[in-house]
Amino acid sequence: MKVTVLSGGVGGARFLRGLIDVLPQSDITVIGNVGDDLELLGLHISPDIDTVLYTLSGAGDAERGWGRADEAWRALDTVAQLGGDTWFLLGDRDIGLHLYRTEALRKGEPLSSVMVRITRGFGLDLTLLPATDGALRTWVDTPAGSFPFQQWFVARRHEDDVDGLRYLAADGVSPHAATAAPGVLEAIASADLLLITPSNPYVSIEPILAVAGIREAVRARTVPCVAVSPLIGGKAIKGPADRMLTRLAGGTSAAHVAGCYTGLIDALVLDEEDADDTSAVAALGVRPVVTRTLMRDPATRRALAEAALGATGSVL
Amino acid sequence: MKVTVLSGGVGGARFLRGLIDVLPQSDITVIGNVGDDLELLGLHISPDIDTVLYTLSGAGDAERGWGRADEAWRALDTVAQLGGDTWFLLGDRDIGLHLYRTEALRKGEPLSSVMVRITRGFGLDLTLLPATDGALRTWVDTPAGSFPFQQWFVARRHEDDVDGLRYLAADGVSPHAATAAPGVLEAIASADLLLITPSNPYVSIEPILAVAGIREAVRARTVPCVAVSPLIGGKAIKGPADRMLTRLAGGTSAAHVAGCYTGLIDALVLDEEDADDTSAVAALGVRPVVTRTLMRDPATRRALAEAALGATGSVL
Repeated sequence: MKVTVLSGGVGGARFLRGLIDVLPQSDITVIGNVGDDLELLGLHISPDIDTVLYTLSGAGDAERGWGRADEAWRALDTVAQLGGDTWFLLGDRDIGLHLYRTEALRKGEPLSSVMVRITRGFGLDLTLLPATDGALRTWVDTPAGSFPFQQWFVARRHEDDVDGLRYLAADGVSPHAATAAPGVLEAIASADLLLITPSNPYVSIEPILAVAGIREAVRARTVPCVAVSPLIGGKAIKGPADRMLTRLAGGTSAAHVAGCYTGLIDALVLDEEDADDTSAVAALGVRPVVTRTLMRDPATRRALAEAALGATGSVL
Repeated sequence: MKVTVLSGGVGGARFLRGLIDVLPQSDITVIGNVGDDLELLGLHISPDIDTVLYTLSGAGDAERGWGRADEAWRALDTVAQLGGDTWFLLGDRDIGLHLYRTEALRKGEPLSSVMVRITRGFGLDLTLLPATDGALRTWVDTPAGSFPFQQWFVARRHEDDVDGLRYLAADGVSPHAATAAPGVLEAIASADLLLITPSNPYVSIEPILAVAGIREAVRARTVPCVAVSPLIGGKAIKGPADRMLTRLAGGTSAAHVAGCYTGLIDALVLDEEDADDTSAVAALGVRPVVTRTLMRDPATRRALAEAALGATGSVL
């Protein structure tokens, strides 16, 4: 069974760890978010995709949830000593990946192509594709102004309320013109099941769907698409998803999550704490599947993956 | 007394450590070799200038003689894991400098200008200038082919005999068109004393002199210029200077060293083991000054600096 997964960073990676325990990696294609990519110190950085890469390969720091294990910060220490940009934490091992990838990109290789080598270099057999090889950058509109995603998220510690999101070109002004990376639309069209990880709908999944052709491909699916809610009891485990849903969708029920994916999903896996929301979810034409969604350990991660795979009843 | 020093990497840096012990740093301008600069992993690397920077600031690894102390290699480990270029050892702290500098260069700032900030960032008061802000690359012609300097020196471990040196443009084909960086010709013209460090004449000093205007400025000096021989008993402490002198100049006496600087120096500081060469040096119109030149510790470094400063008798 071929599964294609739209995934954000930390929550997505954690969900995928369970998925690769229950499915052969060679049957999995992950379409990763590049809306929060950034250029820093001349390096192209893809935080969400790298979090997936590091987490699934076992190279990641389990405690932090991002970055590499056995990491150190000597390069950034030198940059700090010279007064350079250090607001975005880049570890030394992490920088090695960015150097390798940025050099390839600068020579004209597409991101999706470099990622094939990098995925193999980290010992993974799944396919990990950026949604686009073009530039699509998530901008966050707040009462304090508009910021590129990482400026808002990291530098401003996502403290500003979010009035809206925009998905722009590299210049931060023009609308993006990003098209799907080679293999992305094919992976959606040829999958036996589509999954959307428990990620922030606005800043992790929507920048994938905003790429020309991807939303349409998901909408045109002939197989089930199952999303996993990132909320438990109406709250995000980590990050600003609940605050954003409150402000942008009017609430944090499972139905509000399902509402972010209108026409795109057939089932929503939601937590037992949100079981009261099932009828509202069902009213949207989405099948609610209630289970425990907190991923504490391998067993709970596997159970959640199995719940998602079995959510539409027809595919396993 | 203003002193301007033409310097290579390891030997030059060691000599300069003694010099800053006996002269105020603010009176010293170092003109560094960029002929062995390279681009690797998208980074601009200036090994000789950085060796001076690290050594004089105390940030350098005294044992190795190059690179940073308390260094680690996590970034390069990742590059190796991905199959990238790792023949040139870049430590993590070192990479921090290269990231900072390369970003500035890519934004259009000249190397000499970035180096002002970097020198201050490392707590130094002297002026450390690249000979040129342009591209001048030392190529080494050998029986096995022609190589950019670091390919020959590091990747091929300088095992090939050297038939000749060429100082080319960035493309490795055209003759270089490098002009002196701002401040370089002024520092030569306004110095009370010029020094040439105990460095390899062909690959450390000549690439400085080859920059348009620098050789002429040294030749036109009205103050003494003193070189320190890099040889002891006709042998290089480290590196290929002796082999190159044998093949390219016909021998490794102090007179052969002096012959590399015809018309450019007034005195040559040479080691006691080469004292037999004094008359041959004098015959070239260069005053031989015999002393111990091995720099084992602060005292011997200081003594050598003082010998160089006093070599022409007239300047201290």
